[in-house]
Amino acid sequence: MIRFKNISRAQLKSYQKLTQKKYRQTEGKFIVEGERSIKEALTSDWEIEALLVTERGGAIIEYGTFKHIPIYQVSEKELETMSDTVSSQGIIAIVNQKKVSISNYWKNMPAHAVAVMLDGVSDPGNVGTIIRTSDWFGVDAVLLSRNCVELYNQKVVRSTMGSLFHIPIVTEVEVKQALEEARSENFVIITAVVNDGVTLTEFNPPERSLIIFGNEAHGVSPDVESFADVKITIPKFGSAESLNVGIAAGIILYYFAISRV
Amino acid sequence: MIRFKNISRAQLKSYQKLTQKKYRQTEGKFIVEGERSIKEALTSDWEIEALLVTERGGAIIEYGTFKHIPIYQVSEKELETMSDTVSSQGIIAIVNQKKVSISNYWKNMPAHAVAVMLDGVSDPGNVGTIIRTSDWFGVDAVLLSRNCVELYNQKVVRSTMGSLFHIPIVTEVEVKQALEEARSENFVIITAVVNDGVTLTEFNPPERSLIIFGNEAHGVSPDVESFADVKITIPKFGSAESLNVGIAAGIILYYFAISRV
Repeated sequence: MIRFKNISRAQLKSYQKLTQKKYRQTEGKFIVEGERSIKEALTSDWEIEALLVTERGGAIIEYGTFKHIPIYQVSEKELETMSDTVSSQGIIAIVNQKKVSISNYWKNMPAHAVAVMLDGVSDPGNVGTIIRTSDWFGVDAVLLSRNCVELYNQKVVRSTMGSLFHIPIVTEVEVKQALEEARSENFVIITAVVNDGVTLTEFNPPERSLIIFGNEAHGVSPDVESFADVKITIPKFGSAESLNVGIAAGIILYYFAISRV
Repeated sequence: MIRFKNISRAQLKSYQKLTQKKYRQTEGKFIVEGERSIKEALTSDWEIEALLVTERGGAIIEYGTFKHIPIYQVSEKELETMSDTVSSQGIIAIVNQKKVSISNYWKNMPAHAVAVMLDGVSDPGNVGTIIRTSDWFGVDAVLLSRNCVELYNQKVVRSTMGSLFHIPIVTEVEVKQALEEARSENFVIITAVVNDGVTLTEFNPPERSLIIFGNEAHGVSPDVESFADVKITIPKFGSAESLNVGIAAGIILYYFAISRV
């Protein structure tokens, strides 16, 4: 038997504020939407503060009761004020943010490792999709520079399709420091560039790679570029000027994964 | 010397209506934003009806004068009512839609050909990105089924980054008929599936391929699936449940392109 709790005005308001970045940052919480993503959150080691469900959203609640997470019943209208999607699935999770220090990660990486760093990627869909793709290809960690779109942005969270809860993601990364730490742990620093890099198909992935993808319009920043050991380029066969950064990441991560086998 | 025309209230209104699908369909025109996309349109064989520029947007106008296209000066506010982006570049093109019959295309395809069909892909960013990626990898034609998002949707147009004007795109495709025509021209019908297809890396692309990508949530429709000659799957190394359809298309089109060399 599921027991729904009543939600107070004040509590509802505090959750609604999590649609805004500044409140997510001061509160250290964020909103997760979508059945799949919420299931992944529930079965992960992330801390769920609460589930908010409408009458429609009851289907997956067993997970919540199983984990003794408070479940609040809300109206469709109340849920809508927190939802970023046109047609929500009638359920929202409030989840605690995680602060992960990258320094611990470098040391614990396997001998064969691939880490991905996003340097100023600004489109939420791109960041979310790259996290999802990294999860598919078994990437060991994803690092987001300070000037990337915020990880807990609702569209980023949604685009990860639950992969946010699968792989280590380090936020607010100070790029130069991370690159130095990576290099001292024998990571080869690789940037993806549109032109004049080593052709991907001719590149032999090293034991440990840190692959950096840059901003949609400007690419990787100049100081990152100058720090790189290798630049790689996806071969072009037609006439588009460039590839979307998510697509480029997909192809390169595919290539690294199959080359490791 | 550039001569700006004055725009009448009525004409401005008729262009503003092109932000809505139903007017795009009755008028047979659409809006193009962004300097890069507009340059590609201007140097293509698509018919530009007009350019609308603000004082900021003057930088690329030489193209317009060169092609004797009417250029209207509008205010920032007027432009904003037609723009889909937060910060437009001060210029918009009104372009005539093209109706392309696929039947002519099959016959004119080269001996080695790759065509892409989208079957019910509903996210504008995905459709636009797949067109852009197809252009990068030299795909010969892109076919959009009737139940895809509309090609002339402003976000689709923007996401193609000008590739819309580079490669043949057939809209409102009646899927079954197109598949039969393709097969009679010796195209092998290939669908991309999340599980249990032939592993991509073990697949040898045929001389002529029609690759079909399905809806974000439901994949390709059952009758398309049953029509397919081959199903292919991108190998998985981690724990994401699936890949974004744009990413899957990127990896598969990359694979087909490098296999052809």
